[in-house]
Amino acid sequence: MTETMLARRERLMGPNVPTFYDEPVHIVRGEGVWLWDADGKRYLDCYNNVPHVGHCHPKVVEAISRQASTLNTHTRYLHGGILDYIDRLTGMIGHDLTQMILVCTGSEANDIALRMAQAMTGKIGIIATDNTYHGNTLATSHLSTRRPPIGGYPAHVRLVPAPDTVRPIGGTLEGQAQAFADSIAQAIRELEDTGIGFSGMMLCPAFANEGLPALEPGFFDPAEKVIRDAGGLILCDEVQPGFGRLGSHLWGHERLGFTPDVVTVGKPMANGHPVAGVLARPDIMSAFRTAFGYFNTFGGNPVSCVAAMATLDVLEEEGLQQDALETGAYALDRLKAIEHPLKAEARGLGLFFGLEFVLDDGSPATDFAAQVVEEMRRRGVLLNRIGRHMNTLKMRPPLPFNREHADLAIDTLEEALKVVPHE
Amino acid sequence: MTETMLARRERLMGPNVPTFYDEPVHIVRGEGVWLWDADGKRYLDCYNNVPHVGHCHPKVVEAISRQASTLNTHTRYLHGGILDYIDRLTGMIGHDLTQMILVCTGSEANDIALRMAQAMTGKIGIIATDNTYHGNTLATSHLSTRRPPIGGYPAHVRLVPAPDTVRPIGGTLEGQAQAFADSIAQAIRELEDTGIGFSGMMLCPAFANEGLPALEPGFFDPAEKVIRDAGGLILCDEVQPGFGRLGSHLWGHERLGFTPDVVTVGKPMANGHPVAGVLARPDIMSAFRTAFGYFNTFGGNPVSCVAAMATLDVLEEEGLQQDALETGAYALDRLKAIEHPLKAEARGLGLFFGLEFVLDDGSPATDFAAQVVEEMRRRGVLLNRIGRHMNTLKMRPPLPFNREHADLAIDTLEEALKVVPHE
Repeated sequence: MTETMLARRERLMGPNVPTFYDEPVHIVRGEGVWLWDADGKRYLDCYNNVPHVGHCHPKVVEAISRQASTLNTHTRYLHGGILDYIDRLTGMIGHDLTQMILVCTGSEANDIALRMAQAMTGKIGIIATDNTYHGNTLATSHLSTRRPPIGGYPAHVRLVPAPDTVRPIGGTLEGQAQAFADSIAQAIRELEDTGIGFSGMMLCPAFANEGLPALEPGFFDPAEKVIRDAGGLILCDEVQPGFGRLGSHLWGHERLGFTPDVVTVGKPMANGHPVAGVLARPDIMSAFRTAFGYFNTFGGNPVSCVAAMATLDVLEEEGLQQDALETGAYALDRLKAIEHPLKAEARGLGLFFGLEFVLDDGSPATDFAAQVVEEMRRRGVLLNRIGRHMNTLKMRPPLPFNREHADLAIDTLEEALKVVPHE
Repeated sequence: MTETMLARRERLMGPNVPTFYDEPVHIVRGEGVWLWDADGKRYLDCYNNVPHVGHCHPKVVEAISRQASTLNTHTRYLHGGILDYIDRLTGMIGHDLTQMILVCTGSEANDIALRMAQAMTGKIGIIATDNTYHGNTLATSHLSTRRPPIGGYPAHVRLVPAPDTVRPIGGTLEGQAQAFADSIAQAIRELEDTGIGFSGMMLCPAFANEGLPALEPGFFDPAEKVIRDAGGLILCDEVQPGFGRLGSHLWGHERLGFTPDVVTVGKPMANGHPVAGVLARPDIMSAFRTAFGYFNTFGGNPVSCVAAMATLDVLEEEGLQQDALETGAYALDRLKAIEHPLKAEARGLGLFFGLEFVLDDGSPATDFAAQVVEEMRRRGVLLNRIGRHMNTLKMRPPLPFNREHADLAIDTLEEALKVVPHE
């Protein structure tokens, strides 16, 4: 069955279409933190952040069904749904981010954020880290180093070394914040020297794709000063850390303690319905809308808005951010207590964990981490890897993940670590 | 009520957020070809192509509801939904377009199509017409002339004069196809002379935003030869003409009679659910997937696929393409019979109509057309305008639009044309 589906995928979707696992999972049903495959095998989902309040949450499904049978049109007509949602979300963020554009994907949101910085500064130079991901549009894919663009790397993009708490940039953990700021200052000088000019920096405030390094609040302060002094904007990609996943704070920038000019939101926002958005100050929104105009056919339609609204309702009614804080702290303690010769660091923010492995010689234990992921899948727990060297286990479950689920996941992990060879 | 909503929109969404009509409509409910505003006033929808098989079609709503309560995850796991849909849609198009990427918006689809041409040719030069629209991402927005990009117009984009059957390029209708091809050949020479090179041309095969000119099949043949001879790809944006709207053919390129290398689909594809896609030959898909890689979190998820599948089911079960052909022909005859001193041309393809107005001196009757749109709205019929000068009424209703609806729309139009001043 699976083999036939893989062949069909290749025939219909082409080559290099990413799947998880050596033997990909054929999932047919989801509920809460659980997924079931076609053979009826149940998996604990320790990976998916999109079903934020749990797979197929009945409140979100009901909201989608009701609105889809009532009206689903676009924002060129007036509708209360989008206004009620923006009113509510902008009330949850501060920093005078009182206006919002609703779109369908985080990629679309970040593609807009880049242009907001352009519109405000009249420049196009942009900085990101060298192991990030901010989207799949042509413009946002320029911020990724995965593959060189056709026509060469564009001159307006500068990528700086990503922070790392196992191999800190600049050599020491204490000096890393300043080293990070210094590399941003250098990139700004390069952009200015070439005449391109500097529009801003885009970052994930959890540096999630960079490996979720265990950074202290205040880490971004020196960088923030450098960017502000140069007149650039801080474009904060909250697609992964946002909406309470970090437990201690609703947003990643709140935890690090810096002031974003633009915030983008996505994946978990509507529990899987294609909804994303860009929050900005009125002066920035006005500059963008004057310079570019913008209309998104599906963005902010009534169904999208009720899906996003119901997700916020559940988040609050079920106290999921508080659960993320408490279960996250419990699970992180257990992860930190794991003893294994290759374990380099256990780190976590709420319900987002990284468990990094390195070999005896200090090099990344990439293959080992890959084998642990496969072993966990065989044992019914779905997780994956992150970081520059993909040697860090990534656990990022739906928020209804409780202490019992955490125990099951980590008990299973301890067993897997006993059987996966590491010599 | 409406005034308060407008003020709220400005406060929450910022300035320059487009709405239709001097006094925007506050729509709260939709069914079939009908929309209702908050005061209970009913409107005949002669504009919206997104609710392709009718607003809130119960079959599509039921499919979304059922799947949303079962599973909604991504394509890194195996799922039959996306395979069944691609298998079905690629069986409806020909030209060896046997593979597909599913995304969320037509903008995302066109953004990929641009990169497919880059991956196949190793070049980035791209041609479009000078009054088109292919999307709102940074890359696709470069194909629009609405506003100059920050940093100036990019050198890799060349825009050629759009075809027009009232003011033909080159001066005569007979010579227009060759004049169009000649301007493309000139643009290709410019791209090659500057060292940028030519990757392809993107076009809507109905030239919908250009004003839906009444072009004969074969019009694109000379251009196709020029593009092929230069090694470029033909990227065919079927977001507006596709899925049977034209009546005579399922796709716009079928009607004109040319061979696309890549076809993008969107808006009507899933009756309003955010779904779009890119169809390509295996060699092109392989080149793209090798050069760029690509993953779209929401793209091709199980809910998107059942929404798109149910839309195809209804299209076939209710014979809507045939209805578009028959009702379209009937309505076009009636539009052609309208007598009005400013009427320049009535044209149509299935259920997509343009009615162009010009002043006595031959200049575009833009204000007149705008007033007709407002008068129609007052009389309970929603339509709008297209074309370079926005002097062409645009009618593009959901496909369940029948002869009775056509009579109501055109009777109302005849009355509106009597009362809108034209001197």
